[in-house]
Amino acid sequence: MVAIQRRDGRSNDAIRPVELQMGFNEWAEGSCLITAGHTRVLVTATVEDRVPPFVRGTGQGWISAEYGMLPRATNDRTFREATRGKQQGRTVEIQRLIGRSLRAAVNLKAMGEKSILLDCDVIQADGGTRTAAITAGFMALTQALLKIHKATPFTGKPLKDWTAAISVGLSMGEVYLDLDYHEDVQIGVDMNVVMTSQHQLIEIQGTAEHGLFSRQQLDLLLDFVEPGIDELVALERQALPEGALLIG
Amino acid sequence: MVAIQRRDGRSNDAIRPVELQMGFNEWAEGSCLITAGHTRVLVTATVEDRVPPFVRGTGQGWISAEYGMLPRATNDRTFREATRGKQQGRTVEIQRLIGRSLRAAVNLKAMGEKSILLDCDVIQADGGTRTAAITAGFMALTQALLKIHKATPFTGKPLKDWTAAISVGLSMGEVYLDLDYHEDVQIGVDMNVVMTSQHQLIEIQGTAEHGLFSRQQLDLLLDFVEPGIDELVALERQALPEGALLIG
Amino acid sequence: MVAIQRRDGRSNDAIRPVELQMGFNEWAEGSCLITAGHTRVLVTATVEDRVPPFVRGTGQGWISAEYGMLPRATNDRTFREATRGKQQGRTVEIQRLIGRSLRAAVNLKAMGEKSILLDCDVIQADGGTRTAAITAGFMALTQALLKIHKATPFTGKPLKDWTAAISVGLSMGEVYLDLDYHEDVQIGVDMNVVMTSQHQLIEIQGTAEHGLFSRQQLDLLLDFVEPGIDELVALERQALPEGALLIG
Amino acid sequence: MVAIQRRDGRSNDAIRPVELQMGFNEWAEGSCLITAGHTRVLVTATVEDRVPPFVRGTGQGWISAEYGMLPRATNDRTFREATRGKQQGRTVEIQRLIGRSLRAAVNLKAMGEKSILLDCDVIQADGGTRTAAITAGFMALTQALLKIHKATPFTGKPLKDWTAAISVGLSMGEVYLDLDYHEDVQIGVDMNVVMTSQHQLIEIQGTAEHGLFSRQQLDLLLDFVEPGIDELVALERQALPEGALLIG
Amino acid sequence: MVAIQRRDGRSNDAIRPVELQMGFNEWAEGSCLITAGHTRVLVTATVEDRVPPFVRGTGQGWISAEYGMLPRATNDRTFREATRGKQQGRTVEIQRLIGRSLRAAVNLKAMGEKSILLDCDVIQADGGTRTAAITAGFMALTQALLKIHKATPFTGKPLKDWTAAISVGLSMGEVYLDLDYHEDVQIGVDMNVVMTSQHQLIEIQGTAEHGLFSRQQLDLLLDFVEPGIDELVALERQALPEGALLIG
Amino acid sequence: MVAIQRRDGRSNDAIRPVELQMGFNEWAEGSCLITAGHTRVLVTATVEDRVPPFVRGTGQGWISAEYGMLPRATNDRTFREATRGKQQGRTVEIQRLIGRSLRAAVNLKAMGEKSILLDCDVIQADGGTRTAAITAGFMALTQALLKIHKATPFTGKPLKDWTAAISVGLSMGEVYLDLDYHEDVQIGVDMNVVMTSQHQLIEIQGTAEHGLFSRQQLDLLLDFVEPGIDELVALERQALPEGALLIG
Repeated sequence: MVAIQRRDGRSNDAIRPVELQMGFNEWAEGSCLITAGHTRVLVTATVEDRVPPFVRGTGQGWISAEYGMLPRATNDRTFREATRGKQQGRTVEIQRLIGRSLRAAVNLKAMGEKSILLDCDVIQADGGTRTAAITAGFMALTQALLKIHKATPFTGKPLKDWTAAISVGLSMGEVYLDLDYHEDVQIGVDMNVVMTSQHQLIEIQGTAEHGLFSRQQLDLLLDFVEPGIDELVALERQALPEGALLIG
Repeated sequence: MVAIQRRDGRSNDAIRPVELQMGFNEWAEGSCLITAGHTRVLVTATVEDRVPPFVRGTGQGWISAEYGMLPRATNDRTFREATRGKQQGRTVEIQRLIGRSLRAAVNLKAMGEKSILLDCDVIQADGGTRTAAITAGFMALTQALLKIHKATPFTGKPLKDWTAAISVGLSMGEVYLDLDYHEDVQIGVDMNVVMTSQHQLIEIQGTAEHGLFSRQQLDLLLDFVEPGIDELVALERQALPEGALLIG
Repeated sequence: MVAIQRRDGRSNDAIRPVELQMGFNEWAEGSCLITAGHTRVLVTATVEDRVPPFVRGTGQGWISAEYGMLPRATNDRTFREATRGKQQGRTVEIQRLIGRSLRAAVNLKAMGEKSILLDCDVIQADGGTRTAAITAGFMALTQALLKIHKATPFTGKPLKDWTAAISVGLSMGEVYLDLDYHEDVQIGVDMNVVMTSQHQLIEIQGTAEHGLFSRQQLDLLLDFVEPGIDELVALERQALPEGALLIG
Repeated sequence: MVAIQRRDGRSNDAIRPVELQMGFNEWAEGSCLITAGHTRVLVTATVEDRVPPFVRGTGQGWISAEYGMLPRATNDRTFREATRGKQQGRTVEIQRLIGRSLRAAVNLKAMGEKSILLDCDVIQADGGTRTAAITAGFMALTQALLKIHKATPFTGKPLKDWTAAISVGLSMGEVYLDLDYHEDVQIGVDMNVVMTSQHQLIEIQGTAEHGLFSRQQLDLLLDFVEPGIDELVALERQALPEGALLIG
Repeated sequence: MVAIQRRDGRSNDAIRPVELQMGFNEWAEGSCLITAGHTRVLVTATVEDRVPPFVRGTGQGWISAEYGMLPRATNDRTFREATRGKQQGRTVEIQRLIGRSLRAAVNLKAMGEKSILLDCDVIQADGGTRTAAITAGFMALTQALLKIHKATPFTGKPLKDWTAAISVGLSMGEVYLDLDYHEDVQIGVDMNVVMTSQHQLIEIQGTAEHGLFSRQQLDLLLDFVEPGIDELVALERQALPEGALLIG
Repeated sequence: MVAIQRRDGRSNDAIRPVELQMGFNEWAEGSCLITAGHTRVLVTATVEDRVPPFVRGTGQGWISAEYGMLPRATNDRTFREATRGKQQGRTVEIQRLIGRSLRAAVNLKAMGEKSILLDCDVIQADGGTRTAAITAGFMALTQALLKIHKATPFTGKPLKDWTAAISVGLSMGEVYLDLDYHEDVQIGVDMNVVMTSQHQLIEIQGTAEHGLFSRQQLDLLLDFVEPGIDELVALERQALPEGALLIG
């Protein structure tokens, strides 16, 4: 655990410049390219009129996610998972987190028996790719739901609330919001939080990489998260104002 | 989200009967069979005199974990991962959690350049296998470290503190400690916590499966966790009192 | 080929202490944990109401087996097959032997169109895991058949006879019954025999690892096997006396 | 084989609007995002100071390529190869073509014992992804070579000539340059050509999908290709004029 | 690129001695063992009464191919693809070429909804295995079609023309027909051509391995190919004269 | 279990016509194409100057085997293992048997630190492929050893004796030697025996597929095997008389 010098000179509570570019992919029912500092993730949403076997017949919908990184998204090239013949543990863990979080952001009953698959592909990585994927995934999902809604209006509200995700870290007693890769590798405690505009929690994952943390520190970390989520939600509303129609 | 009836009549804040059987495997450097209600997990610790490439030369040790379930550990048989040719996403996610948590429980510097691999195999499952694996993993790890210590005493203390893990859930505003499978599938919010005897956090993973949760509810969940951890740590101290020698 | 010193001082024709613990797994339709010296194998039986395609419509049942070893079942840890993405040749060979032998112990016609899958998992290995798995597999199978029988009595007898398996070896002209690992690696000729209480053969596999063997020696090996099978069958009858109901 | 109506109203000998965006990826030694109509392919070049075993010690360099498609690059989502655990035949065939073509564009001796790996990832597909990948691959490769050249000037010229690739098709006696997906699925004869600015051939692959073709028709197809290559080379020179330094 | 000395003293425009042995496999609907110099490939044709999903209901047939090499078909043993768990890129590329070429040789409509799978296995390799496989594949396919025709005569002609394949190369301005392995590894430009008896092209694949080639040289290469194809077609007519019945 | 009618009218104790064609493969150090009725297996021997890690430094040699079937070796095509990405259980079991048997036929010490890999590929199958592979494997192995011997004479004798393998079956009390496929699927007890010219056993595998068998019947089965082995050994001596030089 060391004192962290932010390379871009941000204050501890500042997020990186974020851009949400809707419709980057011309074929998908929904798509969002998120840029957060040097991190860029493209998420596409694919709508299918069937659900997995364990949901079939319940009248509910389903959301799932797949995650990948282009081999040279990182500074040192990583191998292409397709040529190795399997996904790494990290990939699997992340795509389960994304799917779980976005399912929790949705009223699956209101969706009807449809499924939406979110493909999250990291074009360039500089820390925070999983939280960026959740934020962009929420946007691509919303755009896809709007498309369904235009064809056949939903009777209920398929979304619980505007939802976004951000990372936060603790090192030497200092809290840092929205870690880049350089910060992430040095941090003592690393936490990812998925939260709604009303500051309700969807997922919280805190890990002591180096050193333990107290409940008081957990609280402090969450204090930094809330304004970060507020900023992201503001960008979401701007990027896709009609999304509000779907929120109940 | 529904009101949960505990099948075994436990109070909401009671953990299931837990037993820690040390040395269940005769060949391993450390081993612990944990029984928590109907959940049984066998963890063995294997010591190796080398570390993974990314640690080599740092003077530090390494801890990693693998997780598996016997196919009929569950009520409906699940396929054998070895015959399918790959581990499921759930397996990968869990073994990463176990490895990460137990690495955080250890002073890797004090261990020296050795690695300890924890094999966590679920003999019978009834909810809470990942937290049971972490608790038993801590015990097998401690036993293995004691064996090293007897041969060549450590100069520093390789363990930070007694460490245990437990699950907790929230449904209809009620909190339930140490969920069994029946409870787990119905719960609204599901949280796994890895904590030390001093109530320091090592890992916290909370997920809104059905419904969101507030920071106040997060706090309440942690209030239930602490006495559960206390009980588990008491059992740990009883099962392997010499473990105290390694804690700094 | 060398003269073998039995580490536990057994006479050449003695089997190791064997224990058959029925119902070790609470969820399975049948289960048996066999302990033979330091070898421990847990077998569970799973009943399914369907049979593989090539049996469908014949009115017959089916028995199959899967075999695995916990990574630290052995003194030196072996890799986890699920992480390597494939079963080793040895595993495949053994599970085919177990399935074939137990199918031959059963009147498949009398079973009706059901299948029973035997999961044989080695908790601790010290030689003879495949024969231990067959013996315990016969017991788990019998328990599962009894469970079916209690619900809907079989009209015919689904089992041919009490069935057990044992290994035997030949080194420097001496015969040794029930080899442990230490003996197995030194032995000249290694043989596994599956036999009924009436001393009828179900499977015999004899291999000259070092040196050839004559038909006279084959005969001698089988002379040692018969009393060993008798002992195992006696333990089987004791562990599950109702099994006799199913034998025709 | 049917008469083809070009959806975008292009004349038969017109290529689609092409854009070459250099340096799209901030980490790679070379990168080019090519847009050709609705087809978009990102190619990154990774330089390594070692070569594959079969080249080692020859003083030569090596070029290889990997190809992938984001799952929703196509109108109907295709599965993610990493989750299936293997690359499709089409993928393998294409990446071999790209690697082979770009190796032929280079003086491997002049490169020295370095290798350059080209990752070609299709962001959006509308026909012609393999030829787009070759053209963009040439550009990323050139940029990477320039970077090496700036550090340690090459003594010889590592590139033979400006190189580009384009597709051409034949249907009902009519020739069509630069096929989009809609045209590709209907075409009778489909040909991909890799060519230099001097109209020297590097690779030619012509396939009769529906109907045969004569040597006269082969000639006619190549007559359409040459001006297309000229246009692409002009764009290449504009996008990276310093590339000329490397061409011998 | 070097001057090539033909080891067997053939003139540049001579093919190797070729033999087509029909019916080498007793079980298959069609089979041909082709010997071309030291290259030997066995192709079997398997007829199935169903077609892949994407053809179903169109009234058309389908042709596909699989390719393999016995491990010791080559001078240095290559690994067995089945033990490595995947086919090499080269294998995949070749089997796609064979399938595509033979589909183009057939009137799929006239075949009806049947599929023919060609298994091409290299018994011994000395260059030109892919073209040998196409020529022998055409013969096995024709034999299988004749078998169908005898049972239920086709109304249309299922074959377009007698079809064969051959390789040709260019080195130091000299053209060489039908390359053996020794020649193939030294050649500058390598081309495989699939052609009908009427000299119509089905597939052309030309690759500059070392050095580029002009359109004039492409023409010269094709001048060498035509008489080679004539020789092969003459052997085909001799080996299976009834094949003529199927050609329209 | 049914009475078996031999399709080819052989007497119960007759083997099928067998042919051993040495040197069928021009590149391998040893090769033998065995034809036994309609069964044809090609075995090649590859000599390597290194041994597997667990033998290294012991001064001993090693023998291993791989087994495969061409997809259309059987009447109904079986899938190609290389495309499925794994070998079937049957394949694995057979190749382990072949390797183990031929290792036992060799004085590994006398071989020196070399390994010989036997590739056994079934060109056409009609029962008895594993025993045919062992017999042909012994011949290819002997040819390869002779080749080594000619270069550097062995000081000891690398072969124990002429070795061959044959199957035998029991049905309704009748014994049948050398089962073809039609017989094999109906047989009650199926046995494979690897034996030397002196009638010493190397491997015996007897399986009750339908019905049990007594020790007396085991004896009877072996009575049929001996003359069959004699016939095969006579053919071996004829095919490669110099083999006698290597037998001690």
